Amino acid sequence: MSLIHPMILCGGSGTRLWPRSRKAKPKPFLPLVGERTLFEATLDRVANPEMFAAPIVVTGSAHLAHVEEQLGASDGATIIVEPEPKNTAAAIALAAVRLPRDAVMLVCPSDHHIADTSAFEDAAARAAQLASEGFLVSFGIEAKTPETGFGYILSGEKLEGGARIERFVEKPDVETARSFLADGRYSWNGGIFAFGAGRFLDELAKYRPALAEAVGNAVAEGEADGIRFHPSDEAFARIESESVDYAVMEETDSAAVVPADMGWSDIGNWDALYQSREAGEGGNVVSGPAQLVDCRNVMVDSDGPRVSVIGLEDVVVVVDGGDILVTTREGAQKVGKLEGAANQ
Amino acid sequence: MSLIHPMILCGGSGTRLWPRSRKAKPKPFLPLVGERTLFEATLDRVANPEMFAAPIVVTGSAHLAHVEEQLGASDGATIIVEPEPKNTAAAIALAAVRLPRDAVMLVCPSDHHIADTSAFEDAAARAAQLASEGFLVSFGIEAKTPETGFGYILSGEKLEGGARIERFVEKPDVETARSFLADGRYSWNGGIFAFGAGRFLDELAKYRPALAEAVGNAVAEGEADGIRFHPSDEAFARIESESVDYAVMEETDSAAVVPADMGWSDIGNWDALYQSREAGEGGNVVSGPAQLVDCRNVMVDSDGPRVSVIGLEDVVVVVDGGDILVTTREGAQKVGKLEGAANQ
Repeated sequence: MSLIHPMILCGGSGTRLWPRSRKAKPKPFLPLVGERTLFEATLDRVANPEMFAAPIVVTGSAHLAHVEEQLGASDGATIIVEPEPKNTAAAIALAAVRLPRDAVMLVCPSDHHIADTSAFEDAAARAAQLASEGFLVSFGIEAKTPETGFGYILSGEKLEGGARIERFVEKPDVETARSFLADGRYSWNGGIFAFGAGRFLDELAKYRPALAEAVGNAVAEGEADGIRFHPSDEAFARIESESVDYAVMEETDSAAVVPADMGWSDIGNWDALYQSREAGEGGNVVSGPAQLVDCRNVMVDSDGPRVSVIGLEDVVVVVDGGDILVTTREGAQKVGKLEGAANQ
Repeated sequence: MSLIHPMILCGGSGTRLWPRSRKAKPKPFLPLVGERTLFEATLDRVANPEMFAAPIVVTGSAHLAHVEEQLGASDGATIIVEPEPKNTAAAIALAAVRLPRDAVMLVCPSDHHIADTSAFEDAAARAAQLASEGFLVSFGIEAKTPETGFGYILSGEKLEGGARIERFVEKPDVETARSFLADGRYSWNGGIFAFGAGRFLDELAKYRPALAEAVGNAVAEGEADGIRFHPSDEAFARIESESVDYAVMEETDSAAVVPADMGWSDIGNWDALYQSREAGEGGNVVSGPAQLVDCRNVMVDSDGPRVSVIGLEDVVVVVDGGDILVTTREGAQKVGKLEGAANQ
């Protein structure tokens, strides 16, 4: 089979991992799990040269310096620099337009953690096969808890290595999420996709013709600069901002899903990050100078100041850039709404 | 009645309010409750000129700068500067030697909080009366909880304004402490005393003759320097280090107690401090820049950095000098044993 073209989405400015993650240095560029940043780990995951072509990174000008610094020696990598964020449909289309029509691309967000690389490769191979047959393929992350913050995918008719998608369900309430888990046919939509480049553009042109045309113009009028490619600002400004889920996946008749059980986490908040890190004695996870006394399942993450914790359970303490966050693991989902996080 | 001579003990280097309290700036010199430091509040408490003479402060050379800075305009105040800490028997004796034999002195620690000044004055008047009659008088703080960290006083035969002391009990176990509370005749020994100066020295000479003599020599060979008095280093070095409780109060036949219910707290740890401060909404107490979400009975005390707390109950967060402490209120008693507190 021909090589898969990894297309790495590198944008966003999440507030949910504040105060570590900030506008100036968002989540993908931080070493949240292990020594490598999430962006570096995403590159590592698609580095097998027998399986993957050089990556195409799509990012915004605000993050370009981080991308170039961390891209390292990715031979043949290219960077598409978006003048402004226009959501995933446009980002993916930009890369698709610059690929041969028969190329298979693998869309990889760079703000997720995936523990099991070989399970990832296995799912990628199955997804690429289905994509080469004309399917628009989403990874279906094995749902392990009744999350209410994710989209769910209902699998239908079986296919080799996966299934047709019966329907998409946006963020359900907890009762519905529980019933999905019990049902067994639902998986999480992790935002990882495999598409034939030409097939994707055809479907986009069918369901969002204006968007497809605007992206085509932005590339046609764009300029290459070394490994960077700059779409035309003017044409880009006219692109609609829409997710690939809405613009294409929920519209097409050819949506498929490949099941993927690969230790995936969106690291959507400090509790999720706690769970992705390896715990030590008493379930505690420590990064930076800290002393814990009578603590269980406590995470301390400090960029310098010493943190002393006594008697706590299921609590996260984060010190970064002179800000201090202390939250229950359950409260971690409210971090994005804090004053500091919102006005960073 | 003649004026009472307040004698303010200003030493110690507690570790239990770390990281706020440090060797270089211990508890008495910090504004822990309200705007005034504990030392300033102690001065304020004995400032009524119809009742009190000018204060005598006994402190160590390490704390002299703090004392002089905070002493303010206390007309006629004097400072006895101890070359090294020698516990309370010696400190009190130093002041007693420099007073007329018929003077009544009121020994006031400066690391306590007393909410009700008029109840304090009332107890001081009763104690001074008994002291002028020859009793060695301890304030008996109304015991409100079965504390195991305090000494207890058992009241015996009634006296006008107080009672003879039947016995002293050092830090009891919790069962014993509970039985004391139920009994009703026990109070806490708060370290506040009233003595006739001559009477005190006589009893000290009777039970600790070497200590009494060494203090006498240290004063005789000492030197005045403005409002400061420096006991002789050499004579001082020979003084035994012993508490007034052991050296005199538990020995004398003339020990008396005056009951005092005056909102006293030794502010012995962060939980005690939380309880001494006025709580706002949800029982939370905030000092410094902080935002609390879904919190109850949480205290935040920051010397600068912003602290954000989500979802916690009965927790104290202290930020000071680049150190961060997060403890349950219950765990607060373990602060003194933290690495940072011990090796400050």
